Amino acid sequence: MTNFNQPVDAALVPRFAGHSTFMRLPAVESPGGLDVALIGVPFDGGTTNRAGARHGPREIRNQSSLMRRVHHATGAAPYDTLQVADLGDCPVNPIDLRDALAKIEAFFAEVVAAGALPLSAGGDHLITLPILRAVGKRAPVGLIHFDAHSDTNDTYFGDNPFTHGSPFRRAIEEGVLDPKRMVQIGLRGSLYTSDDHGWAQAQGIRQIYIEEFARRGVDDVMDEALAIAGDAATYISFDIDSLDPSMAIGTGTPEIGGFTTREAQFMLRRLGAVNIVGADVVEVAPPFDPSGLTALTGATMMFELLCAIAAGRAAARQEALA
Amino acid sequence: MTNFNQPVDAALVPRFAGHSTFMRLPAVESPGGLDVALIGVPFDGGTTNRAGARHGPREIRNQSSLMRRVHHATGAAPYDTLQVADLGDCPVNPIDLRDALAKIEAFFAEVVAAGALPLSAGGDHLITLPILRAVGKRAPVGLIHFDAHSDTNDTYFGDNPFTHGSPFRRAIEEGVLDPKRMVQIGLRGSLYTSDDHGWAQAQGIRQIYIEEFARRGVDDVMDEALAIAGDAATYISFDIDSLDPSMAIGTGTPEIGGFTTREAQFMLRRLGAVNIVGADVVEVAPPFDPSGLTALTGATMMFELLCAIAAGRAAARQEALA
Amino acid sequence: MTNFNQPVDAALVPRFAGHSTFMRLPAVESPGGLDVALIGVPFDGGTTNRAGARHGPREIRNQSSLMRRVHHATGAAPYDTLQVADLGDCPVNPIDLRDALAKIEAFFAEVVAAGALPLSAGGDHLITLPILRAVGKRAPVGLIHFDAHSDTNDTYFGDNPFTHGSPFRRAIEEGVLDPKRMVQIGLRGSLYTSDDHGWAQAQGIRQIYIEEFARRGVDDVMDEALAIAGDAATYISFDIDSLDPSMAIGTGTPEIGGFTTREAQFMLRRLGAVNIVGADVVEVAPPFDPSGLTALTGATMMFELLCAIAAGRAAARQEALA
Amino acid sequence: MTNFNQPVDAALVPRFAGHSTFMRLPAVESPGGLDVALIGVPFDGGTTNRAGARHGPREIRNQSSLMRRVHHATGAAPYDTLQVADLGDCPVNPIDLRDALAKIEAFFAEVVAAGALPLSAGGDHLITLPILRAVGKRAPVGLIHFDAHSDTNDTYFGDNPFTHGSPFRRAIEEGVLDPKRMVQIGLRGSLYTSDDHGWAQAQGIRQIYIEEFARRGVDDVMDEALAIAGDAATYISFDIDSLDPSMAIGTGTPEIGGFTTREAQFMLRRLGAVNIVGADVVEVAPPFDPSGLTALTGATMMFELLCAIAAGRAAARQEALA
Amino acid sequence: MTNFNQPVDAALVPRFAGHSTFMRLPAVESPGGLDVALIGVPFDGGTTNRAGARHGPREIRNQSSLMRRVHHATGAAPYDTLQVADLGDCPVNPIDLRDALAKIEAFFAEVVAAGALPLSAGGDHLITLPILRAVGKRAPVGLIHFDAHSDTNDTYFGDNPFTHGSPFRRAIEEGVLDPKRMVQIGLRGSLYTSDDHGWAQAQGIRQIYIEEFARRGVDDVMDEALAIAGDAATYISFDIDSLDPSMAIGTGTPEIGGFTTREAQFMLRRLGAVNIVGADVVEVAPPFDPSGLTALTGATMMFELLCAIAAGRAAARQEALA
Amino acid sequence: MTNFNQPVDAALVPRFAGHSTFMRLPAVESPGGLDVALIGVPFDGGTTNRAGARHGPREIRNQSSLMRRVHHATGAAPYDTLQVADLGDCPVNPIDLRDALAKIEAFFAEVVAAGALPLSAGGDHLITLPILRAVGKRAPVGLIHFDAHSDTNDTYFGDNPFTHGSPFRRAIEEGVLDPKRMVQIGLRGSLYTSDDHGWAQAQGIRQIYIEEFARRGVDDVMDEALAIAGDAATYISFDIDSLDPSMAIGTGTPEIGGFTTREAQFMLRRLGAVNIVGADVVEVAPPFDPSGLTALTGATMMFELLCAIAAGRAAARQEALA
Repeated sequence: MTNFNQPVDAALVPRFAGHSTFMRLPAVESPGGLDVALIGVPFDGGTTNRAGARHGPREIRNQSSLMRRVHHATGAAPYDTLQVADLGDCPVNPIDLRDALAKIEAFFAEVVAAGALPLSAGGDHLITLPILRAVGKRAPVGLIHFDAHSDTNDTYFGDNPFTHGSPFRRAIEEGVLDPKRMVQIGLRGSLYTSDDHGWAQAQGIRQIYIEEFARRGVDDVMDEALAIAGDAATYISFDIDSLDPSMAIGTGTPEIGGFTTREAQFMLRRLGAVNIVGADVVEVAPPFDPSGLTALTGATMMFELLCAIAAGRAAARQEALA
Repeated sequence: MTNFNQPVDAALVPRFAGHSTFMRLPAVESPGGLDVALIGVPFDGGTTNRAGARHGPREIRNQSSLMRRVHHATGAAPYDTLQVADLGDCPVNPIDLRDALAKIEAFFAEVVAAGALPLSAGGDHLITLPILRAVGKRAPVGLIHFDAHSDTNDTYFGDNPFTHGSPFRRAIEEGVLDPKRMVQIGLRGSLYTSDDHGWAQAQGIRQIYIEEFARRGVDDVMDEALAIAGDAATYISFDIDSLDPSMAIGTGTPEIGGFTTREAQFMLRRLGAVNIVGADVVEVAPPFDPSGLTALTGATMMFELLCAIAAGRAAARQEALA
Repeated sequence: MTNFNQPVDAALVPRFAGHSTFMRLPAVESPGGLDVALIGVPFDGGTTNRAGARHGPREIRNQSSLMRRVHHATGAAPYDTLQVADLGDCPVNPIDLRDALAKIEAFFAEVVAAGALPLSAGGDHLITLPILRAVGKRAPVGLIHFDAHSDTNDTYFGDNPFTHGSPFRRAIEEGVLDPKRMVQIGLRGSLYTSDDHGWAQAQGIRQIYIEEFARRGVDDVMDEALAIAGDAATYISFDIDSLDPSMAIGTGTPEIGGFTTREAQFMLRRLGAVNIVGADVVEVAPPFDPSGLTALTGATMMFELLCAIAAGRAAARQEALA
Repeated sequence: MTNFNQPVDAALVPRFAGHSTFMRLPAVESPGGLDVALIGVPFDGGTTNRAGARHGPREIRNQSSLMRRVHHATGAAPYDTLQVADLGDCPVNPIDLRDALAKIEAFFAEVVAAGALPLSAGGDHLITLPILRAVGKRAPVGLIHFDAHSDTNDTYFGDNPFTHGSPFRRAIEEGVLDPKRMVQIGLRGSLYTSDDHGWAQAQGIRQIYIEEFARRGVDDVMDEALAIAGDAATYISFDIDSLDPSMAIGTGTPEIGGFTTREAQFMLRRLGAVNIVGADVVEVAPPFDPSGLTALTGATMMFELLCAIAAGRAAARQEALA
Repeated sequence: MTNFNQPVDAALVPRFAGHSTFMRLPAVESPGGLDVALIGVPFDGGTTNRAGARHGPREIRNQSSLMRRVHHATGAAPYDTLQVADLGDCPVNPIDLRDALAKIEAFFAEVVAAGALPLSAGGDHLITLPILRAVGKRAPVGLIHFDAHSDTNDTYFGDNPFTHGSPFRRAIEEGVLDPKRMVQIGLRGSLYTSDDHGWAQAQGIRQIYIEEFARRGVDDVMDEALAIAGDAATYISFDIDSLDPSMAIGTGTPEIGGFTTREAQFMLRRLGAVNIVGADVVEVAPPFDPSGLTALTGATMMFELLCAIAAGRAAARQEALA
Repeated sequence: MTNFNQPVDAALVPRFAGHSTFMRLPAVESPGGLDVALIGVPFDGGTTNRAGARHGPREIRNQSSLMRRVHHATGAAPYDTLQVADLGDCPVNPIDLRDALAKIEAFFAEVVAAGALPLSAGGDHLITLPILRAVGKRAPVGLIHFDAHSDTNDTYFGDNPFTHGSPFRRAIEEGVLDPKRMVQIGLRGSLYTSDDHGWAQAQGIRQIYIEEFARRGVDDVMDEALAIAGDAATYISFDIDSLDPSMAIGTGTPEIGGFTTREAQFMLRRLGAVNIVGADVVEVAPPFDPSGLTALTGATMMFELLCAIAAGRAAARQEALA
């Protein structure tokens, strides 16, 4: 028997029964004692087009009932070595963007202070900004960023600096994100101007368009991404719109021609080699997801991330012992 | 300040945030200390046509986030006088009907033993049979039954006695339900034979077809229903297919020409005068409910029933004091 | 035991199993020997806005699996006294409107010649024109017509005389429909000009708008309708858009504010007093019917019509005996 | 021939063809010369639960292609006497609520200054606040308000004063709305506290719950509403959630038991007697409207309002001549 | 002219018209004289999560109207050399799992006895157990099994041995399936324990995970699969959830990262070299398939299987002649 | 600043706001002065199975709001060098196929006469016939044709020569299309007879099945296609059903196993080397597209085509200068 929290077993309690929590883990009220805190951030106030990601955490929780305990390909068994729980939804404010940013940052600061690694379900991509403020407070973190969009634009609708199209620009400006240890994979979709990515590239962000990815393949791209991230603290942000919309239509700004889920899974499985200090899956917007596939995919990506985190911790332990 | 559980306030925490429980009340593990236990029964193994009610409790919980605290028309404020909580989902077995019946009966027997009144969300209508076995164990209960169908058929697919078309026949045969204190309101839809309802009527069940209801109106019909139920222990069963399918298409056996929700609400508000020992809302089948309206309606009917229960308890207290 | 065709019994074979025919009756290849022929007319080439009624017969067949044998309110048991079968789909041509009209007329002429009463599922409302050519060939028939629209316009898109907005004008001009014995019930929706209905009224058609219906009620309106139809041969045409679109959104030209299904059912139950020579339910367009309710409603209206036909035949027999 | 703008004729250009504008009227860039300006306000930043009304104007435009020229029941022919056009969408800001309020007010101030009556499609109900600031700037206006909710709450999520639950409280506080000439019809749904409506009633707002409406009927209620509004300048606000959700599920906060569309249409047809200075239809949220019915209903209610405005203007002209 | 049954030609009768049968072939009542019997098995009583596959046969029939006569890539023309027909739906029992298993086995035993090869549409995967009992009665058969899941679990919800997660374990235990001639392709998805597949592998089943498939490719994998099956009697079972859920979301237990349909088609086209004694396509669950794609895919896979069977028979005939 | 029309900027006006035009470009009434005219052709009267493409232009316009200005991979910036506008919808006739063909031809003849290159959104594939009559009037054009189907059948439903299955046969017979400079890519799906493509191949059309495409890859196939088209005037026709239905289920005749959008985009990006005189994207049928992905994909393919046209023009200019 284990002392770690275990998911409710679907061979005993059917997947459709019981309270809906991330991975069917216990719901807890405090991050104390957790290795990994699964957190919902139901906020989409930074969305410039189709809102709906506020409903993401609830549906991702529902669909995560399909996850089991052990990774079939990597063998990772996160609940054998990590204390994981559903920490519930972070406080938000659907009416006041700046208040929401403050609430999210404060909540994640507590999680970080408690020593728990936050693995979050958005919410739109703006939520990553206050999370980075929390995890990158002491020192700027690196970032492996899967997305159709760079999200390094400056302002929208006049001079509004905070949208889901700008979180990484703000995080770099604020010094919580290190652009030199940042890689964006899967970029595509038409641009506002031919210089849309000029600022990002000038900061040293490595941008890998979907065309380059298609040419080089998963392993070559991930070799480079791991090298960029290096050994230092790194955050992982997985925008569901990095996937092809045939696999993730429930999102605010779909762009055709994206990753297959198989490609994405193979990439995430390489992250066991990364010093992960936090991760998120964002932009799942259930109102645009008639089949529920997008939320299922989001839940599965969370499980892949959890397994990568477990693998990384196991490797670190082994290294420490050696 | 009150000692009673209170729903999470939607003016503080948005309805789409936080764990999804019935009425946003606390989730508890035991019925001890509860006046009313809100219970999910995710079982549809008695369904003869379109399964899906197994998913009912989860979606009813989600939609119940739209409920607030006080009834706008009756003024009932159930959380001012009753201890109410979400007791979670009753154990079930999607593969073995008889095991499921046993599990449900056992669970409800505990609830009854603890002194809590069970207010349940199905599940198909077969779940009412094991619930009646629990609440009617000591003495047969009366029943006010809203439904398009009598559910007093005998057997299906050979000699199978347990389906969602037969629970009340079984309950009467088993002596846990008193047909003389039983009324069915809203019956309609074509029949297998002209004698489909012969057995029921021979037992003394009062059947009010939708045509009679349309002619007499809510108050006249409910006057009669209350008289039939009398002062003794009575169960309330609300099959969502009693409603017109324009208001509740997410169900296994829809029949056009049903109650409007307004009519149904007006009927349920009369139930404060009844000695309610348990109630349920059944046959909400989310896979057939693309807009979610059926689950919202189910949640609202649960709130109406809860307010009726609160009103009845308040009246009983006053009577006791007088 | 009866010699008449019987529907497959849903207590033996579940509704979702077996070949899908109207009312789960046998499929036959010829109208010979039938009292009532249930016929699909999968043609929507006359549709001016949203096509899709070509898919109506298939989905109405599927949903008709929910019908049973005996009418709960009138007691009609059509399969006790009538030989009824599914005669399949009439030949059509989705590419050539005039060829389709010819094919439909020829098919129904055979049905009429065989002595079978055709009860059809459309298809758009243009299909009623070739059917009327068949049933009204010897003498113009009367018409009780439930619809949001008069369908007596002249031409569309230039000088096209054949659309689903013009069948009754053509039928009157061709002498197969008697406007003096014709009543339209449920008309509503904005008009092209204030004189849209001038031609119809000049022919003597009685038009009962939804407002007049709402004021007078089912029985008063139907008393008048029956008087207009009189004892002579009368056709019944039920456009599903006569219903409120909350009950029938799967149609090409929905208009809010229509009949409830309860109102429509109560009207159809009065038709036992009419000398019915044919009937149809048209404009069910499944691609616009995400919940399937419109097709279910169409199937139920066909059953109501079948019961009315059975009642009328029974009454005629009694009269003949008396 | 007329000098007034005319809708594109659906008997010439099919409803699915051509650019999508309100009522198929010309799109114009300036309110100059218009009697009535049809305006979209694609803003839902005040929504506390399910966002999506930002997509309302586009879908209402699409569905308004089903409207024709003349009212079938009242005979109103608005395009015979009024210059009406689609003025496009008001500038908004999905990221900054206060900037959006300012932009909306400025836009409507120009419309009012140009002498055009604004008839708007929301957007959530918060948009009515800046519109009232524009139309009520010189003197507070009266209000006939159809809604499930009073929308006179104070603050949400802390001290946020501007949400779709508070516009009328703010408008009264700001002196642009006269609570003594204000009536709310259709209120229902559970309350936060038993005193939710205390402030509103203390201001003198007349609140007619759905129960009172059901008891008294359309005409009696509207007699009172017209008396409350009197002869002075009055605004009409129609929240689509006043309707039963079977007819309008595509909205952020549905409440069962609402108006039928037939009831609502009959009420709106009484408004020809009101001195209307502006009107809106709000809270149509297409992402929650799988069948499109809610947008169709919204478009039809706009047409009803336009006909009432035309009738009122005609009556005023006659009175002036007399 | 041919003596073999031919599908209704879609260039004569539109695909949406006519009775809905598999491949638009004649419906027959007996397997006598058939080379291949197309059979629906509308049973999902073994489903542990989302039921709905009971509706699979009906929708697969509908979508199979899109199939034509000749395979575009292999040139197979099954209706030139095989007598094929729609044998209808096998008797089932939605309420009693063991009765259903008995009924299915008995039905398929008759088919086998008549010398017809059964090609079936499920139903959930438990249906393959009674089919294997029929086809493997005389001698255990081999199996080429496409699936995301091994379906060799032992018991669920206590000690229930019969679910859609356990058919192959039972079939091996019963001696109707030869694990040494069994290969599973496409396995993936998280596991209950790291030993989930231990029993299967201990029996000698060859398991090819999706990762191995992705690495080796269609031809290499199928070379091995054909070698495993050898020349002896082999059954083919195609679980629709072997496909990526972007192509088959209408299923009970979707797992991302599956086969593309192109990959699956290329695999099935290799099966002409196999001695096929029966085949099925299972787990198509229409209630979870809003676009209908899953049923279309199921129908196409049935056609691919039929073409492979035809190719195999042709090869066998040639061999016999040589 | 540029003199060319520019799309409305989504960083100023949200994508959901404003009138819906192709690419958010200005709507114009005449092709005069345009380099490229974006045109809707809302006609699906040639559809043999599921109609609905008549609604294609409207939804493609809506989804094209997601396009921006510059191609991320090729760097093409069409609005820097081309005058592009939305010319609205071509006149059609949903009731009279031949009248529709005449209207479409006449409209496109004017566009061609004005010197504008037509880039169209269908409608079903029959619309390409009248467009080819206009663009191929002076000399037969070449064709690069992406499709699951050859669309070179002869007649349907008797002797009807004009359907969406026959446009290219008619165009070749009429001498407006040169079969020697015609290539079809992506063909698949079962055939009516083994000789379905005999006529096409006899004319010299090069047919590349999906299997050949899968084997050779994008670049090899496109090298050949460009060689076939050569330097002379060439039309591009992109049937959305060339794509895999997981990416484009909203179409009349889906066939599994098609192109990924990534493959299709990579092919279209090679077309800058072609002398394009017109192009279309056809068969987007929104009623069968619950998620809207098909229309989004159609809009993106139009943008890819526009970028290819811009690249081709730029290359031609450079060549002229050199």
